[in-house]
Parts: sequence; structure tokens; C-alpha cells
Amino acid sequence: MTGAKMRMLALKFAYDGTKFDGFARQPKGKTVEGEIISALRAVGIGANPLSSSRTDKWVSARGNVLAIETDFPREKIIAALNGCLEHIWFYALADAPSRFKPRHAEWRKYRYYLQDDNFDLAKMKKCASILVGEHNFSALAKLEEGKNPMRKVMSLSVKKSGAFLEIDVKAQSFLWSMVRGIVGVLRAAGKGEINEENMRRILAGERRFDVGYAAPENLVLLEVRHKGLRFETDGNALKKMRREIDGETERIALRRKVIVALKIHR
Amino acid sequence: MTGAKMRMLALKFAYDGTKFDGFARQPKGKTVEGEIISALRAVGIGANPLSSSRTDKWVSARGNVLAIETDFPREKIIAALNGCLEHIWFYALADAPSRFKPRHAEWRKYRYYLQDDNFDLAKMKKCASILVGEHNFSALAKLEEGKNPMRKVMSLSVKKSGAFLEIDVKAQSFLWSMVRGIVGVLRAAGKGEINEENMRRILAGERRFDVGYAAPENLVLLEVRHKGLRFETDGNALKKMRREIDGETERIALRRKVIVALKIHR
Repeated sequence: MTGAKMRMLALKFAYDGTKFDGFARQPKGKTVEGEIISALRAVGIGANPLSSSRTDKWVSARGNVLAIETDFPREKIIAALNGCLEHIWFYALADAPSRFKPRHAEWRKYRYYLQDDNFDLAKMKKCASILVGEHNFSALAKLEEGKNPMRKVMSLSVKKSGAFLEIDVKAQSFLWSMVRGIVGVLRAAGKGEINEENMRRILAGERRFDVGYAAPENLVLLEVRHKGLRFETDGNALKKMRREIDGETERIALRRKVIVALKIHR
Repeated sequence: MTGAKMRMLALKFAYDGTKFDGFARQPKGKTVEGEIISALRAVGIGANPLSSSRTDKWVSARGNVLAIETDFPREKIIAALNGCLEHIWFYALADAPSRFKPRHAEWRKYRYYLQDDNFDLAKMKKCASILVGEHNFSALAKLEEGKNPMRKVMSLSVKKSGAFLEIDVKAQSFLWSMVRGIVGVLRAAGKGEINEENMRRILAGERRFDVGYAAPENLVLLEVRHKGLRFETDGNALKKMRREIDGETERIALRRKVIVALKIHR
């Protein structure tokens, strides 16, 4: 008891999912949640944090949201946490109502990067338009028992960007692996493996169109929006994050140089 | 004893050094040599292979050379070995004299990729020209006891290539970590941390100019040349190698997309 007032804070954070053995805390292995809990303890916050989204293993995030109730000085918490973390960056803060539940979001937006393998973009867009709206997504997700399989996709776009496709999908909430299931079915549509009729049967719950899940490492949780929260970004945190991401981008560019140099041109 | 004639073969191979715990066989860990020995055993060759260059941990190669004495069918050996290997590619073959020692090369050529950190290229080139020729490279290498520290650098070039510098160095042989030591001193020259006079003192053996070794993962052994060997490349092996390198290049490009997407633009 320090006498300082406990307050509910919402913190926005990003992470490079490929550096972790998943999101949710585990007894073994380095997880995003596990590292955040360690950082909270290291700075003297014992809180049990709640996150908006428990992303799949190897999925990255730009805009996940964490809720903690704490008396830690508001203006120091982001720098304190970032000082203890690697590949996870806290960068914005909002005051939240005392009963704030980060799982209850207004919407979430994911982006998937897909190598363009000569896909039929028109077929993919058609398929995407069928998925928009409220449907039973059982056949495109790993279903947890007792969970309502109905989800409402608010938007789903397929856009060409150089040698890649950017697939953006927005919904209030998603089932387990649902985004990767959607990308799997769009990919199958783009290759002409399934048609509109198949799509409708998939949404009617037919499981025999098993088109697989797209690989997790190309998926990013771009943003989670909560009604009423007004985030202020932290300039220093953004700087640190940019510097570290630029360093990683540089390492990737060098890695590309080396691997291309191994090719024999003859 | 199969009755088939034993012959000495020289095999050219490439590898992605970042996927291994070093080159030389070790009791523990996955090494380039260890994997090659396993592959030789798997196809039924018990030979103890000798390589031209034992590259530093995480260094890659495009043109290392292996010598084995074997009665294995000449035309099948590359496909057989490649079938057992990952991140290592055999792609050319030559008949070699029975006493062929791959360590005795006519020359070796390495390339280093350096992120251009606003280096003074003129200073680097000047420094490079001082290093060319026969010198005592003790101060720029990790010296093994009893080893002659004199080495003759046949050429050393610094070339701008986009956001990178390509540093190519050719010599008959190199001391342990010598290329990375040379890149370290060129980098220091490019930053203006050492001048020509310092350079001459480094070559006179003064160790107080400790400029460090450049990171190994950006170094590639491009080529090793042996007098009299005429290599024939294997078309199928090249195809397999190109396909796998293209796959890796694609993964790198996707990785870049994801990490850049994490950046907050505000």
C-alpha cells in the first residue's frame, strides 16, 4: 500500500511474433505474455495483465492492447517496461474505465502478406466478398468447445502490392486461427481449387473442403479499437521501436545479399 | 571391396552458414562438415572428406571444394549427396590427382557485405591498397600457434552496391578470421578512426589498434581455385539449389514485409 491511487491503464504494444514460442504464458519457453509479466514484475507491478488478442504462435502485432490496474507513475510506465523487453514495444497509453475488458473490442484488424503465386485476383476478391458479413466460420477455424462459431466479418480486402498480396480483414472478434483459415480459402480460390459454390458450402459448415491454414509468420495484428479509449503515443518509445525495427530491416537486407550471392549463375 | 576402381574426386559445394553451428565436425551441434560426413555415410561412402576451407561459424560459401576418394558411381554422387542434405548444395565435380590436397589452393576469394554507414570510401580504398601484397597479418587475425603469419593479399576491392559495400578479397590462403579482421580495419578507416600511418603500424604487428572483427554472417567464400582441376557443373543440382535459394529469398522478403508493417507511422 503506497497510498498512490490505483488506476486502470490501457497500453498499446507491438511485437515480433517470430521471436517467441507463442503468445500465452507457458511453464516453458519464451512467450509474449510471459515476457510482459516478467517485465511488470521487474519494475514492481504485480498485476495480472489482460490482453485484447492472444495471437497464434509466430503471429506479430502492431496494435495489441494490454490492460493493467496499477499505481505505478503513469508517465514512466512505458519507458520502464520497454527497458526490460526485447522484440516487444509498448508505445501508447490511455486511461481506461475501471471495469475495462480489453477482450471486448469494437473491432480488430489483421493483415496477411501472401507471396503472389500467379493467383486469380478476381476470383479471390469474389470469394472475399462472400465471406463478408455474419457467418458460421466453423469450417475455417479451429473451434473451441462451447464457443459460438458465428462471427461477423466487417471488411475483407485483397490488394496487390509488388510481388505480394495484402489481405486485410476486420471483425469485432475472430475464432482461433480464423484469419489464417480465411487466407487459406482465399488462396485456394486464387488457384482455382474452389469456386463460389464451394465457398457457400464451406460457410454452411461442410468440412470436406480442407484447404489448410496459411502460415502464421506472415500475419500481423494491425489494430484493435476500443470505444472511448484515447491513446497518447510516447515519442521516445516510438524512436526506440523504429531504431530496433530499422536494425532488423538492415539485418534482413544483408541476409538477402548473402543468400543471393550463393546462387550460381552459369 | 566392390572391385570398382577408387578415384579421387573434387566436389564443389555451397552452403548457408547461418543454418549451422560452424564448419568443422563437433561432437555436439549441426556443422557443415558433420552433415556432409553423415550424408557420405548414408549413401555408403565411408571416406573422411577434406575441404579446401574451414570457414568461421556462420560464414557461408558458394565455392568450397571437397576431396574424396571413392568408388561410388561418378555420375550419381552429387544427386545422392544432395538428397541427404539441407542448406548444403553440391553442384560441380572434377577428377583430381590421387594426391589432391584441397587445402593447397591457387587462390581463394571472399566477399563481405557491409551496410554503408556513410563511410569515407576513398579512405577505405586507400587502406585496402596498403593491405595488398605480402604482410604479417598477426594483428588482423586470430593466430594459431606455430602458424606463419605472413600472407599475400592478391587483391582487395571496396565497391558500393546500393545501400551496401561489397568488399572482395583474394589470397592464396588466409589466417583464422583474417577476412573479418581486414573488414574490421577497413570499416575503421571508413569511419576515420584510423589513418594510413596507423595502418602501417598494424601491419608492423602493433596490436593496440584493436578495431574488432566484422560479423561472420555477412561473409561468403565465393570461390576456391585449384590448378589443373576442371569442374563440370550438374544441371539438376543447380536447379535444386536455385529453387531452394529462391524459396529462402521469398521467405526473407515476406519477413521484411512483416517487420516493416510493425512500424508506427505517426
